[in-house]
Amino acid sequence: MPINHPPPIVTLLTDFGEHDGYVGAMKGVILSILPHVKLVDISHQILSQDIQQASTVLAGVYQYYPPHTVHLVIVDPGVGGTRQPIAVETPSGIFVAPDNGVLTPVYEQEESWRAVKLDRPAYWLAQPSHTFHGRDIFSPVAAHLAGGISLSQIGSDCQQVTRLQQPRLALLPGAVQGEVVRIDRFGNALTNIRHLRWVDDDMIEFIPMDAKTEKTGSMQFKADTVQVTFGWHTLKGIYQTYSHVSVGQAVALIGSGGELEISVNRGSAREKLALSVGVQVKLLLNH
Amino acid sequence: MPINHPPPIVTLLTDFGEHDGYVGAMKGVILSILPHVKLVDISHQILSQDIQQASTVLAGVYQYYPPHTVHLVIVDPGVGGTRQPIAVETPSGIFVAPDNGVLTPVYEQEESWRAVKLDRPAYWLAQPSHTFHGRDIFSPVAAHLAGGISLSQIGSDCQQVTRLQQPRLALLPGAVQGEVVRIDRFGNALTNIRHLRWVDDDMIEFIPMDAKTEKTGSMQFKADTVQVTFGWHTLKGIYQTYSHVSVGQAVALIGSGGELEISVNRGSAREKLALSVGVQVKLLLNH
Amino acid sequence: MPINHPPPIVTLLTDFGEHDGYVGAMKGVILSILPHVKLVDISHQILSQDIQQASTVLAGVYQYYPPHTVHLVIVDPGVGGTRQPIAVETPSGIFVAPDNGVLTPVYEQEESWRAVKLDRPAYWLAQPSHTFHGRDIFSPVAAHLAGGISLSQIGSDCQQVTRLQQPRLALLPGAVQGEVVRIDRFGNALTNIRHLRWVDDDMIEFIPMDAKTEKTGSMQFKADTVQVTFGWHTLKGIYQTYSHVSVGQAVALIGSGGELEISVNRGSAREKLALSVGVQVKLLLNH
Repeated sequence: MPINHPPPIVTLLTDFGEHDGYVGAMKGVILSILPHVKLVDISHQILSQDIQQASTVLAGVYQYYPPHTVHLVIVDPGVGGTRQPIAVETPSGIFVAPDNGVLTPVYEQEESWRAVKLDRPAYWLAQPSHTFHGRDIFSPVAAHLAGGISLSQIGSDCQQVTRLQQPRLALLPGAVQGEVVRIDRFGNALTNIRHLRWVDDDMIEFIPMDAKTEKTGSMQFKADTVQVTFGWHTLKGIYQTYSHVSVGQAVALIGSGGELEISVNRGSAREKLALSVGVQVKLLLNH
Repeated sequence: MPINHPPPIVTLLTDFGEHDGYVGAMKGVILSILPHVKLVDISHQILSQDIQQASTVLAGVYQYYPPHTVHLVIVDPGVGGTRQPIAVETPSGIFVAPDNGVLTPVYEQEESWRAVKLDRPAYWLAQPSHTFHGRDIFSPVAAHLAGGISLSQIGSDCQQVTRLQQPRLALLPGAVQGEVVRIDRFGNALTNIRHLRWVDDDMIEFIPMDAKTEKTGSMQFKADTVQVTFGWHTLKGIYQTYSHVSVGQAVALIGSGGELEISVNRGSAREKLALSVGVQVKLLLNH
Repeated sequence: MPINHPPPIVTLLTDFGEHDGYVGAMKGVILSILPHVKLVDISHQILSQDIQQASTVLAGVYQYYPPHTVHLVIVDPGVGGTRQPIAVETPSGIFVAPDNGVLTPVYEQEESWRAVKLDRPAYWLAQPSHTFHGRDIFSPVAAHLAGGISLSQIGSDCQQVTRLQQPRLALLPGAVQGEVVRIDRFGNALTNIRHLRWVDDDMIEFIPMDAKTEKTGSMQFKADTVQVTFGWHTLKGIYQTYSHVSVGQAVALIGSGGELEISVNRGSAREKLALSVGVQVKLLLNH
């Protein structure tokens, strides 16, 4: 490896927790194949077998990594069954995962991608187990890809990949209806009303688009003219910071991933507003 | 360090958790001595002072690392007391730990090993505390060993090491009796009936061996002819994958460490079958 | 980067937890700017928005790192509000954090330091969000500083910084009164009676000093002549190790940070002695 090359990077995102040493074994496999690799933990605290949560976390993270990064995403309730192990190459990074839908946001966010089935045991550990492909198949494949082996070498073309059903946006006259898709550690509620951004201190741009709709052009509106409703609550306006409201008060903002976020300043929206995944949220424009 | 050398690796396995910064201090000590080291967390979530759990996690992980790796294992309820700090060199890796039995699987799995007492303060931090040898003694020693200092330099020969009492296998006529030794994050129950492997899709090889018995040769049996019993439950056959049974059903498999494992497909054997560490499990052959 | 240089180090200490991918996004930003950086997690398990706990953990860790290390400390309940993002350079390391008091121990422990406001967007991500400065401002600044950009380039001088109110020591005739400031994972109670150290096996040196008092010279006393009192309890003497007392018994020691520590051998002082943060502890000298 010439010294000026950036070192290879493999990130790990799993539901393995940190009690059992499963992640430790995977890292040992990767380091044995690619000693100069940089290993980066994204999270091992995905809820057990929660493919949807893993895909949501992945969606907000991978684009911050250099494009030569290999992202290993192992939430694999069907291990050893009929689901295919795959690798997917995109302009923003390479992904190694079971084909169970966990890579859905990659297919949606990337302009182009190419998938292969991992069907070349030469790149696996010898005698792979039937219960821990993370260690025996996915990790060695990730190491080889990070080390420069091409997608074509590692497997044969995969024509069809599995996608998760994503909660849809409803585009109504003068309103957009979505739902809470994630609650973060701070109790902030993140919705699937995405592609919002501040144009200046007053105006917000919004691109109404979901998994099924094509991009239909953008709209702009004044931030203090909208309303956000959910349950019995109505919040007037979208603001830039938590501290726009007093401590303990609710506020609608644009979250760090460009999504409509409902928060409580220095508190938990989950607790104070009884928000949870699946709760419907409406954005009323021009009120 | 010539560029083509693999970088030194130090892994960390402790019961320190991640709230207190104890692990962070250890990593700082190691990086200060050996700037090019690769630090790898195995787990810091070992139950407080649970030497047995740490040794079980270690047993399933270390062999996946390159043999020049130094494994730092700090579960040390007797810190500052009479237990010796030791380092142990094997063909598969170097281990640095308190001599309280936490390295028992290393003594059992490795064909040869050599231990020294850490009695050379030149390789410690100056003025070590009496309550945190992990930072003040074990970490600097691990860094020096990973950097190439020899075992003989770091301490003087240690003739006798401490071993944990391990739960024994009972080899009965036509049956093997063991017990659950670990429940993993997914609720899978791992037993001490080990050294099982698939010969082909139907046949399993088993080497009946435990801490006390020598290897007595192997036996082979058809996977669907055996029974696995525990409590009121009887499972017929051992299968390759969780998905052999319907969602929510129990299944016996060979776990990723070659041990008899009892699982529930997409569920928790701990919850559904009331399994816990210490529950007796019998493998009935040729039924 | 010449090969013999030590690699740049960035440590991360946050209250982000590991479920959401927030830390993963920060690491991607840093690696994209500084591919050879060593990333080290101190903790992401700081209680949500608990600036005091983060500062206490930081206080015990940073001095074990090489002085070229950049410490990223993101506990930031006021993100997007009026609090300044700052960077602070000291002989022991560089710190990047919101100016909310989380760096208080740095100002107290370091002989000299210099702070700048982070007001140069050229060193941030483009279009920083208002809700995640950790990713969009602090992480890129930390990467640039670790890569060799100077403090003067990254921001303009900051004359005044925010300090936390620290619990004070009361120096009474023949006694010192402090309080429990942290409970660690093992249930050990750490107090703010600091700057204790063993001179030899019998004698302890104590430097009575707190945030407000200047160093007033040291005193020495015999370890077995003192008493430690809290609630209804009186412990006679300070000892070197947990194992000085029987399993389950309470003992006063000098903790690994040089502070008076109250522990239970192989048990939890928090549970057995009902200790918690804020409980008053008195050290009675020459009894």
